[in-house]
Amino acid sequence: MERRPIGIFDSGVGGLTVLKAIRDRYPDEDFVYFGDTARVPYGTKSERTIIKYSLENARLLRKFNVKLIVVACNTSSSYALDILKRELDVPVIGVVRPGAVAAVKATRTGNIGVIGTEATVKSGAYRREILSINPFIKVFQKPCPLFVPLIEEGWLEDRVTYMVAERYLSELKGKNIDTLVLGCTHYPLLKNVIGKVCNNITLVDSAEETAIETGKFLGGEVKGNGEVRILVSDMSRRFKKIAEMIMGESFPVEEVSVDVC
Amino acid sequence: MERRPIGIFDSGVGGLTVLKAIRDRYPDEDFVYFGDTARVPYGTKSERTIIKYSLENARLLRKFNVKLIVVACNTSSSYALDILKRELDVPVIGVVRPGAVAAVKATRTGNIGVIGTEATVKSGAYRREILSINPFIKVFQKPCPLFVPLIEEGWLEDRVTYMVAERYLSELKGKNIDTLVLGCTHYPLLKNVIGKVCNNITLVDSAEETAIETGKFLGGEVKGNGEVRILVSDMSRRFKKIAEMIMGESFPVEEVSVDVC
Repeated sequence: MERRPIGIFDSGVGGLTVLKAIRDRYPDEDFVYFGDTARVPYGTKSERTIIKYSLENARLLRKFNVKLIVVACNTSSSYALDILKRELDVPVIGVVRPGAVAAVKATRTGNIGVIGTEATVKSGAYRREILSINPFIKVFQKPCPLFVPLIEEGWLEDRVTYMVAERYLSELKGKNIDTLVLGCTHYPLLKNVIGKVCNNITLVDSAEETAIETGKFLGGEVKGNGEVRILVSDMSRRFKKIAEMIMGESFPVEEVSVDVC
Repeated sequence: MERRPIGIFDSGVGGLTVLKAIRDRYPDEDFVYFGDTARVPYGTKSERTIIKYSLENARLLRKFNVKLIVVACNTSSSYALDILKRELDVPVIGVVRPGAVAAVKATRTGNIGVIGTEATVKSGAYRREILSINPFIKVFQKPCPLFVPLIEEGWLEDRVTYMVAERYLSELKGKNIDTLVLGCTHYPLLKNVIGKVCNNITLVDSAEETAIETGKFLGGEVKGNGEVRILVSDMSRRFKKIAEMIMGESFPVEEVSVDVC
């Protein structure tokens, strides 16, 4: 039987948290990961640009004969998922719906907080998905644009990061939330700091739930050690460092051009 | 006589500090500014990608019949200036050389600090330019990758920003510098915070010196109120807000495609 890889893309390095969660569950599968590091970040850009880039990334992955595509970027999932599903001839899975499902499962008080990039929050995608599951839940959102740069600087357990988290999250804490969705694939790297600031609040990270969702599309037909190919549109030292931190092991990284002319 | 505009590009909004400095001196001139907001930031990307983007930006400006091009981005100036000069049929001015000239004029102790993006610092462009003017000067560099996101978040006079500046600059202060080059066009927006941290150190901002350099290529032939066109590759709310903060007045902003296929 022909082995076809699972394709995963993100604006940069953060989506590797999703790759890791899927691979931990399905180590026999092959993976092609693409990080659009030449155009990262997406979270401060406009809807039109986010959709354009997402389509180009998905088309790039299709060239590798992927059997399904996981959009590991919350910003892309928020704006481009429907278009990707329409345009592509393989199943497409986003991270927003799985994150929303996990949050609804977790909440007891019915008050859920969502943090993410400016674009993700503005799209209202999490709110829509959560309310489509349970319309009685209250959703409170807050963009946290400095979290990604702080993570990329490597200040994961730092006084400055703690202060920034306090500032961003104090408003949400005032809303009596018991569940907080980490609506950006980078944010699980700040789980310790966010957990300290949001004492007694359940942190929901889409990666795990996305891995479960991905499983529904896998037939269990492949056996043997899966291969991982990691592609980027810009080769930076920074990517390799953070990739290793997330994956817990080191993979070769290849540079490819994403220009679809 | 045909009026031809001055072309200016930057990776995003920061280069408007250079546009403002040139326009303050030469208000009769017409300007076309391009901010590559769809691919910002450049400072964390690789040399190859920075050169590719810089060439595309310059070619875009050439379509507007510009008479000269000012590379208002320190990262682009550090890596792409020689190539741009070779490839284009109009004069090209960068911001690194003018900044270096101003710093050498300012120093008394002969110890100069340079702050900038990771890419700018890694290129060593400021060090090379400063030493080519005076080989006896000591140059100490430090990348400050969180400054741009902090500025874009609008935290210009903030306790967090102050702490980050303290952290980044303490090493340089230990080197007994008397002059600090703000080697990124965003950084003049942090002059107050950096000035407090770097008490008694002269801050050098390339914009003013670049405006003087630009004047050498102008014939003084144009009269009347100059026009300003501001183009971006991605239209974001954020751009307009910071643009107004820098320019002190509001200009219409147009979205254009930078893809050169």
